[in-house]
Amino acid sequence: MMADGTRGIAFTGLFALLVVLMVPSVSASDSPVAIAIHGGAGTIKRSELTPEQDRAYRNILNQAVDLGHQRLAAGVDGIDVIVEVIQLLEASPLFNAGHGAVMTWTGEHELDASIMNGATLEAGAVAGVKRLKSPIAAARAVMLASPHVLLSGVGADEFGAQQGLEQVDNDWFSTERRQRDLERYKARHSAGLSPEPTAKFGTVGVVVLDAQGHLAAGTSTGGMTGKRWGRIGDSPIIGAGTYANDKRCAVSATGHGEFFIRWHVASDICARVAYQNLTIEQAATDVIIGELLPAGGEGGVVALDPRGNVAMVFNSEGMYRASIDASGHKVVAIYNSQSERERPEGD
Amino acid sequence: MMADGTRGIAFTGLFALLVVLMVPSVSASDSPVAIAIHGGAGTIKRSELTPEQDRAYRNILNQAVDLGHQRLAAGVDGIDVIVEVIQLLEASPLFNAGHGAVMTWTGEHELDASIMNGATLEAGAVAGVKRLKSPIAAARAVMLASPHVLLSGVGADEFGAQQGLEQVDNDWFSTERRQRDLERYKARHSAGLSPEPTAKFGTVGVVVLDAQGHLAAGTSTGGMTGKRWGRIGDSPIIGAGTYANDKRCAVSATGHGEFFIRWHVASDICARVAYQNLTIEQAATDVIIGELLPAGGEGGVVALDPRGNVAMVFNSEGMYRASIDASGHKVVAIYNSQSERERPEGD
Repeated sequence: MMADGTRGIAFTGLFALLVVLMVPSVSASDSPVAIAIHGGAGTIKRSELTPEQDRAYRNILNQAVDLGHQRLAAGVDGIDVIVEVIQLLEASPLFNAGHGAVMTWTGEHELDASIMNGATLEAGAVAGVKRLKSPIAAARAVMLASPHVLLSGVGADEFGAQQGLEQVDNDWFSTERRQRDLERYKARHSAGLSPEPTAKFGTVGVVVLDAQGHLAAGTSTGGMTGKRWGRIGDSPIIGAGTYANDKRCAVSATGHGEFFIRWHVASDICARVAYQNLTIEQAATDVIIGELLPAGGEGGVVALDPRGNVAMVFNSEGMYRASIDASGHKVVAIYNSQSERERPEGD
Repeated sequence: MMADGTRGIAFTGLFALLVVLMVPSVSASDSPVAIAIHGGAGTIKRSELTPEQDRAYRNILNQAVDLGHQRLAAGVDGIDVIVEVIQLLEASPLFNAGHGAVMTWTGEHELDASIMNGATLEAGAVAGVKRLKSPIAAARAVMLASPHVLLSGVGADEFGAQQGLEQVDNDWFSTERRQRDLERYKARHSAGLSPEPTAKFGTVGVVVLDAQGHLAAGTSTGGMTGKRWGRIGDSPIIGAGTYANDKRCAVSATGHGEFFIRWHVASDICARVAYQNLTIEQAATDVIIGELLPAGGEGGVVALDPRGNVAMVFNSEGMYRASIDASGHKVVAIYNSQSERERPEGD
């Protein structure tokens, strides 16, 4: 018995050793990995964040980009890395996604998310879900377990429930901050004032190049404060808020969604990479600065090309963002680059 | 009194004459107009349509393309022409849009539509409306009277009602044919069979070049027979099912919507025109035949370039279609071009 047990342990140990030796060689190839994350763009000035808020945002951006990079380096599939990183951001009250999402006109939360696999061009998205804890996990389920790309409203909640995704009461997403945002929005509306610019923004998004050489992109949001009439923005629209194609690029967008739909921003950046042979930085700049800025469409994107070059381009005051490119260079930033250089402390 | 009355009539007559003389010179410029229409693509073989059905489809396609061309020649704005022509098709039970739309899993109708102005890149769309008689009119109202691009579900119905759009009971859209389609769909589903190919298709769409030199595009559909979970296809997605840009092209798509979203078909065709300097025919062929056919994405598009050249490209057996290009050349067709040539009677 004793000898058998020992042999069992020895075999288990040998098996474990083999797994340890094999896993990195199988899944973490030498091909470079890269990741870029955003947590929303808009009127984000140094003067408007307290040092504590500034630190809190940088901390979670740091944590999220490190988590994602570590998973990618370990060979985890890009789609799963996107879901895991976005779930970290959805769980944080700091961002307009999941817990901490903005409120609709009626004081509810209607959440949107999408995900796209650059290797297969498979995609999934949900719009206006109210009961699924993780909208990005719901988007992945639509991609993997339905013949559809985009499900909406009560039907999308039902689909998620059938798939065994975690459900919550709608007020699980609520925070006092977003309650105050809605009250301010309604007060301005009653007074005939246009919404504060911040009412439009939020959204989290991630793009990755995984160790298998595949691009992927995902986006999750609560949409616009005070939204009505079942309004759907760009986040769940493949080609507008999210796009990935191994032969072109991967993009996740944030900003004034209506403009990002009309300019089909995510797919247009990748079309310029493919058809105009532009760098990812130039293509993103041509769309975000060259097209959207003169049109009045505020916001930005994070983007990756197939070699793991990162672009993080926005036409607003700031964009919560973080990246680690294929060479390992890391950036965590909030304000525009000049204002970032003036930071009292380094990143 | 008599003299005054006569003078009144004379003045009225002179005024009417001036209007008649002025209207064409003001609104109908010498710039060419063009229009292309589709009424759905799919497995449409000559052997599957009776001569009466064949004639009925050709008659309404003829009527629709003539109506649109006449309005364009009279200088009517392209957006209004699109709404008027699509309303004619929505009212016909022959097409999967408006009255005659397919049924959802629960035996209801959930209608989608979108419209885009190529001059301003303004756009409007509705997804999953159940009570608005004309989904394309609702899409135009979203474009003109809301700050949004895409409204969905009950909220979109409420918005339309607030805008004074005509409301109907959901069963106004019903026809016996679509009831039978749903029964057949459910029977195949129960038997574990995949849906008939025809279950996926329908949709009507129009692209125009108006006398002011502006492109516009619109699309309206009932979606897929047996759809569930608030499924949204490509028809209400700007950049996928509908796109217009005066500097590029105008496209309306029909087919297996999930593929048209993932390949962002309408905007990609126009991106190839803009960035690769392709003709509209070549760009549409590269996407519909070059990309979608190998991927298994069945369907087609009607498209116009800024000079009024028409492309009507599909990778399915047939597509209900009609066009009058900038030179006045008219086409009305259903099957592929070889099968059209074999028609016993001419168009």
